[in-house]
Amino acid sequence: MFFEGSEKKLEVVVKPEAGYLRQKDESFWKQLVQASRAQILSKISSESCDAYLLSESSLFVWDDHFTMITCGQTTLVDGALFFLKQYKASQLLSFIYERKNEYFPHLQHTHFFQDIERLREALKGKAFRFGNADEHHLFMFHADQAYQPELHDTTLELLMYDLQGEVFESFRSKNQESDEIRRRTEINKILPGFQIDDYVFQPCGYSLNALKGAEYYTLHVTPQELSCYVSFETNVFYSEGYRDLVLKIIEVFRPKSFDVVTFQPSYCQSMEVPGFERRSLVEEELSCGYGVVYSHFFQPAQAAKKAYFLKEV
Amino acid sequence: MFFEGSEKKLEVVVKPEAGYLRQKDESFWKQLVQASRAQILSKISSESCDAYLLSESSLFVWDDHFTMITCGQTTLVDGALFFLKQYKASQLLSFIYERKNEYFPHLQHTHFFQDIERLREALKGKAFRFGNADEHHLFMFHADQAYQPELHDTTLELLMYDLQGEVFESFRSKNQESDEIRRRTEINKILPGFQIDDYVFQPCGYSLNALKGAEYYTLHVTPQELSCYVSFETNVFYSEGYRDLVLKIIEVFRPKSFDVVTFQPSYCQSMEVPGFERRSLVEEELSCGYGVVYSHFFQPAQAAKKAYFLKEV
Repeated sequence: MFFEGSEKKLEVVVKPEAGYLRQKDESFWKQLVQASRAQILSKISSESCDAYLLSESSLFVWDDHFTMITCGQTTLVDGALFFLKQYKASQLLSFIYERKNEYFPHLQHTHFFQDIERLREALKGKAFRFGNADEHHLFMFHADQAYQPELHDTTLELLMYDLQGEVFESFRSKNQESDEIRRRTEINKILPGFQIDDYVFQPCGYSLNALKGAEYYTLHVTPQELSCYVSFETNVFYSEGYRDLVLKIIEVFRPKSFDVVTFQPSYCQSMEVPGFERRSLVEEELSCGYGVVYSHFFQPAQAAKKAYFLKEV
Repeated sequence: MFFEGSEKKLEVVVKPEAGYLRQKDESFWKQLVQASRAQILSKISSESCDAYLLSESSLFVWDDHFTMITCGQTTLVDGALFFLKQYKASQLLSFIYERKNEYFPHLQHTHFFQDIERLREALKGKAFRFGNADEHHLFMFHADQAYQPELHDTTLELLMYDLQGEVFESFRSKNQESDEIRRRTEINKILPGFQIDDYVFQPCGYSLNALKGAEYYTLHVTPQELSCYVSFETNVFYSEGYRDLVLKIIEVFRPKSFDVVTFQPSYCQSMEVPGFERRSLVEEELSCGYGVVYSHFFQPAQAAKKAYFLKEV
């Protein structure tokens, strides 16, 4: 049994004259989510942000921008096109669409190349691939317009594979309670003071949104053995960079390999991770104002492994 | 523009009472190839083997076994099922079906899991994955019957990615001649004395079959930038192992990463490759009599790369 945890992501910043996104009727966001083939499960709000927990990941809405992350077999490009029917390109300051390589691309409804052909009907833009095509990689499309993100406008995406250890294994148990999960992951010690909204899926799987003012973080756990995956994302700003936060999270989830994707205003800053080798390091200062650094790390194998037995057929 | 170079492979050994495969009418092999959605382009023969060069890779037929390798969007499983309509499981000594992970799985007609569901209707067997699901990996299905391969029954598959250098770049030139290609690759110095049959595809691409008695080697070049790939395979026996041969071939094609897959009778022998790190090492002694070693090697990056610019959209 498997579930595609790998995510697609959309981040859009609108001009002031486009109006406040949080004042849109909730039915607008509901339709956008449904267009992407997902459902809203729950919602929490801070003074600055509405955070929707979805059947497949998350949607965060601030007044001037929104970030949507979807997994499984969702079609986030349809959500993007729904948004672009209501907002013209001239009303946008920034538009970034990403797709991480999937475990099971043949089960997706569309491929990145098809998505950008459709997006181009509404927006001019540039498409990139971070990482080699035959390894872990991140596809990115961004509208080709100059934008200057604010100094503290940073994002960390931490995408973890081949996980092990007690905390991760426990996600495979039946009848879990979210209190117990929060305690085990200790995520609210790593990032204290956030309002949390989480969901335990059946038969397994876990999602969490967290808000503190304009800050968010989100965690999604896919425990299935054939496709195990955990993703973590946040916009919390760390003046010293994201390295320490990455080290804390990988200590909990113990991936044998992971991607780190960081966005910073106009500069690139990479990191080393002790005990891990780097498979890829890609740095690009995008014309849309963000410096993006993509790294893939892995733990070198100590000895030969046996083949993974799939099944007796 | 891209072409899926990644290959599917079928290797079948028949019992003596099943008759000589080389005595089958050529129309039988033609139908098998067509069932796989490929075409026969040409044929050469030695005293022991018929080698067919296909529109998508190669077919080698000996009296007691055959090996077929197909790429692109072929459906080798259909060729296998065509064979299994004519030969019962009880007439087979060995049946091994492999699929390498593809660049564009969403463009394939079937996935490995679907293939083995269909193969199970004719054969009991076991399915494995060599390598992690989110990295380079090799899927394998083998019929679950005891077999003892002969001492010199060994195979090397060398699958090369992210290629560079003069020889590989020259495959992208127009109007190439096969003489020139053979001279450039110097493959007949690495393995002298073979009868060669090769083909230059339009607009690019190259295939070569070579025979010497019961020995073969085969080379397939996919130069397209979005999906560049070169595969080399041989059954030539080297008492000291395949390492030196691997070093010679990677010196010609200069891949930045590659898989080495070796089959030996009942034992596993891995190798180190200077200048390359190992991402995966998987060893399995299969119940069908072969020891299989799968390794993925890569050249560590010296510095950050820029993102790969796909297109202005």
